[in-house]
Amino acid sequence: MIRILSYNEMNRADIFQRSTVPTGVEDTVSRIIQQVKEQKDSALLDYCTQFDGGAPERLEVSEEEIRQAFESTDPQFIKVLKKASDNITSFHSCQIRNSFIQNKSSGIVVGQKIVPLDRVGLYVPGGTAAYPSSVLMNCIPAKIAGVKEIIMVTPGKNGTVPPAILSAAKIAGVHRIFKVGGAQAVAALAYGTETIPKVDKIVGPGNAFVAEAKKQVFGSVDIDMIAGPSEILIIADQSCQAGQVAADMLSQAEHDKMASAVLVTDSPRLAESVRSELERQLSVLPREEIARSSIENNGKIIVAPNLETAIDIANEIAPEHLELCVDNPFDYLDRIRHAGSVFLGKNCPEALGDYMAGPNHTLPTSGTARFSSPLSVDDFVKKYQYTYYTKAALSAAADDIIYFAEQEGLSAHARSVSVRLAEDLEDGKDGMG
Amino acid sequence: MIRILSYNEMNRADIFQRSTVPTGVEDTVSRIIQQVKEQKDSALLDYCTQFDGGAPERLEVSEEEIRQAFESTDPQFIKVLKKASDNITSFHSCQIRNSFIQNKSSGIVVGQKIVPLDRVGLYVPGGTAAYPSSVLMNCIPAKIAGVKEIIMVTPGKNGTVPPAILSAAKIAGVHRIFKVGGAQAVAALAYGTETIPKVDKIVGPGNAFVAEAKKQVFGSVDIDMIAGPSEILIIADQSCQAGQVAADMLSQAEHDKMASAVLVTDSPRLAESVRSELERQLSVLPREEIARSSIENNGKIIVAPNLETAIDIANEIAPEHLELCVDNPFDYLDRIRHAGSVFLGKNCPEALGDYMAGPNHTLPTSGTARFSSPLSVDDFVKKYQYTYYTKAALSAAADDIIYFAEQEGLSAHARSVSVRLAEDLEDGKDGMG
Repeated sequence: MIRILSYNEMNRADIFQRSTVPTGVEDTVSRIIQQVKEQKDSALLDYCTQFDGGAPERLEVSEEEIRQAFESTDPQFIKVLKKASDNITSFHSCQIRNSFIQNKSSGIVVGQKIVPLDRVGLYVPGGTAAYPSSVLMNCIPAKIAGVKEIIMVTPGKNGTVPPAILSAAKIAGVHRIFKVGGAQAVAALAYGTETIPKVDKIVGPGNAFVAEAKKQVFGSVDIDMIAGPSEILIIADQSCQAGQVAADMLSQAEHDKMASAVLVTDSPRLAESVRSELERQLSVLPREEIARSSIENNGKIIVAPNLETAIDIANEIAPEHLELCVDNPFDYLDRIRHAGSVFLGKNCPEALGDYMAGPNHTLPTSGTARFSSPLSVDDFVKKYQYTYYTKAALSAAADDIIYFAEQEGLSAHARSVSVRLAEDLEDGKDGMG
Repeated sequence: MIRILSYNEMNRADIFQRSTVPTGVEDTVSRIIQQVKEQKDSALLDYCTQFDGGAPERLEVSEEEIRQAFESTDPQFIKVLKKASDNITSFHSCQIRNSFIQNKSSGIVVGQKIVPLDRVGLYVPGGTAAYPSSVLMNCIPAKIAGVKEIIMVTPGKNGTVPPAILSAAKIAGVHRIFKVGGAQAVAALAYGTETIPKVDKIVGPGNAFVAEAKKQVFGSVDIDMIAGPSEILIIADQSCQAGQVAADMLSQAEHDKMASAVLVTDSPRLAESVRSELERQLSVLPREEIARSSIENNGKIIVAPNLETAIDIANEIAPEHLELCVDNPFDYLDRIRHAGSVFLGKNCPEALGDYMAGPNHTLPTSGTARFSSPLSVDDFVKKYQYTYYTKAALSAAADDIIYFAEQEGLSAHARSVSVRLAEDLEDGKDGMG
């Protein structure tokens, strides 16, 4: 069963599972990428035949297919998708940034411009991992950023894509959808084919082949992140109900066998109760096999001397999801430094954030929350700077620039300034003015 | 001499030089990293003996050494460094972002918090590439972001660091400085040694070994970017003075032989004049050999049908530096989408931005400005989200979340919500409340 560890017994270095790339994946993926670079569409169609039960007539999903999918989706689900989409839109709209311009002194203007990416690719997994919520979470921030063209790729099964996925894509505002998955889809987005346009950034989850492909094309295009196994750290005090804490741990554990659910509590009694609850609830879970494997291999219950120490542990570990199941959770918000998404109080199971609350569910894993952030509008814009000086302003700064350049031994730098200070006539003979 | 190409002759794919990793670097670097991981400080001292003319008595630069360096630096240079620092601080302060909190409806709070990184490592190259301007440009944004500890590493030469570098570090607000360079310094920052603390992110330029080391430790820590050779694209109309345009191209070319300077103009006459000017100016340049090699191998002059096409070319190529040497340059600002740093008008040589204007000089190269940005305060903070629902708010949203979770086949997700709706008494028997 799950282990209960004291604070001193825990090994912070391996509190969560890390992903490793299975043998052979690297080579297979680099072969696939080469193939797609050379043979483009014809390589894609070959892979569809090999992996997706046959090549589709057209790689691109037609307007008609989307309309039919939308009509065949349960209207109740359409309503829920729209509500989720509204909440995600509302939250992410707060992330929009303005360009700035600074006009410090006469004749000097500097500024920073925020520009949306031109074209973004969104990978959507097929099979059992086909999550319409992921389509919303990855597409809506790009839409809000102002990306001109959002291209979705997802494997067709015998030429068709699940209606729920197409409906989510329609609601989220995807521009074009192609029936292709795996490393070959990532390669197509990175380098372009006759049918699929080259994008500037690729986002979205996927299996080991997709993750490796994203890693290999990174540099030619940008990518969001290579997600490791999903994790949750739950801090719960003695006032919590063990049944609720256990349910939250299991919601993480049912994702896959590599997922990790860890409880840190200051109550040895709660630790024991959660252990029993886990056993009780596991036995009635439809995905028991997956969840049990995750809990037994990766689950941990840690008893900390107090809540402050529990939060210190969270900051060191920087979990993807952090639940703070305590009374008055806002009292502790300022102490929390490193986490992906934080769920405050006893009424905020992680599932709320997976679907409905509005914050993103694509989050930094494996401790990378120490330096990286949830997917956001920022991931779909970039910035450039600009500088404008009048001749008088340049003249005033010239001595300093020339001096600095000479100190660094870069006399052509210095000369590019001094040449502008010379009388116009003198240089005019060489120019056109 | 430099080639003049028509718009139709240009090959957009290879307008600038790309960097390649020299053979053997990858293996050498991975050996060095392993060595530092295992033997820590003692490995660092060995490498100092091997490469830096001897192991220093202490790896860390003392307060006294910094004081002495500051006093031995030309007061004129201190003044210029401080002016540059003021301008950089002023510009980057506009990049500070606020956290936000959203309180849409009763009982629901969502928000995004901006948190500075805990500890950052700044690599500063030694030798001829020791640029105090780089120290300012890399450190000041981290300082403004609120990073608690900024650690600088730089190779000592026989145990000493150039006074100008130490003075720049003092002015910029570096917290600790260590005399170690190369891949071994990057490894020390990424994994920590007895003396050098592990950081969360490594920034700063370096040679091929440093770049490769950053690539290899990426994931364990964050890195800024792997910079390719430096580039400039100059758009100049017929009213420009050829001598000024040529001087700007040469200020880029003198950096190193791999640097690229490209002119795009709508005036065939200016193209010819710049070509002659380049020859004339090259012959009097102290760094003639480097600049000539860059201009002859990588330099290009492209004649475009008009300025609009010239800007289209710039957007496709996404140059690191873009000069827009035209009258009324602000008329065109909205058309510019992809570049690192833009210099507007005829009085803005790139050198202005390298030292004094305030915008950063660490910029995306090799076309990555299509999706990445100049170094900024954003690189030294990260975000996390938080969600708070009251029990009433959760109850109101419960049906939708449960429905969505069931659609995705994740019943433990659904259960984590429903378990909270049950009468307290019912679940209370398992808990502590």
